[in-house]
Amino acid sequence: MNNSTDNSIGNSTDRSISAVLARATFDANGLLPAIIQQWDSHEVLMLGYMDAEALRRTLTTGRVTFWSRSRGEYWRKGDTSGHAQYVRSVDLDCDGDALLVRVDQVGAACHTGTRTCFEAGGPLPAVVGHRPGEHPAGSSAAGAGAAG
Amino acid sequence: MNNSTDNSIGNSTDRSISAVLARATFDANGLLPAIIQQWDSHEVLMLGYMDAEALRRTLTTGRVTFWSRSRGEYWRKGDTSGHAQYVRSVDLDCDGDALLVRVDQVGAACHTGTRTCFEAGGPLPAVVGHRPGEHPAGSSAAGAGAAG
Repeated sequence: MNNSTDNSIGNSTDRSISAVLARATFDANGLLPAIIQQWDSHEVLMLGYMDAEALRRTLTTGRVTFWSRSRGEYWRKGDTSGHAQYVRSVDLDCDGDALLVRVDQVGAACHTGTRTCFEAGGPLPAVVGHRPGEHPAGSSAAGAGAAG
Repeated sequence: MNNSTDNSIGNSTDRSISAVLARATFDANGLLPAIIQQWDSHEVLMLGYMDAEALRRTLTTGRVTFWSRSRGEYWRKGDTSGHAQYVRSVDLDCDGDALLVRVDQVGAACHTGTRTCFEAGGPLPAVVGHRPGEHPAGSSAAGAGAAG
């Protein structure tokens, strides 16, 4: 029963892979950036890259697979670390040149051990902007939106 | 008073721009991908690209500025559409080669008129993965995590 269900899903997915690849616009290196977001908390965990084969694996296996630009190889997130990413949904953007992959992330998404790669990198000093007419108490950049 | 506060922030930010740029790893085209996320709802709105100057403007003006790869020019989100992005925070990732920008987005982030660019592009057919031992009722991909 599981087999027949899996085959049905597999065939359906295989047929749509060609359609998916036709909609996607890979860059000069054959890659698409993929934003990885925890499906329930909505944390942005990391940004990775997929070529057509990594995207096919991601869409058909339930696990996120990337192309490593630095190592020049496929890597299935979690195979070394145990910190797997289980696929919940995959969306293409309006131009077909970016992916949003919602996942269930086991443990740390970042190789440094933090939950997200952006915690690891940390905040940059930024002037906070506000909509015109919005002047929060104590804001030091209340006028930043005035030119909008 | 506002002026003196703004100058203080400005000088502090200017001094740290060099440090920021030293931490960032721009790609062969001099660009960093920037994930844009609504600060309170945590929606992922879009993916854009910044060169060093676009990042400097984003960090110092309270408004998100991108480099348009298709048009070969800077664009400050909202100047044409009115759908401005007001900066709340900017984080660099662990490798220094991706940005997470949390914003207050006015209206639609996507040029197609949808709130996010991923709504506009829409979902791809994906097999859903689950942690080992997790078998939701009705799942058609209950075994997808078994190899993890």
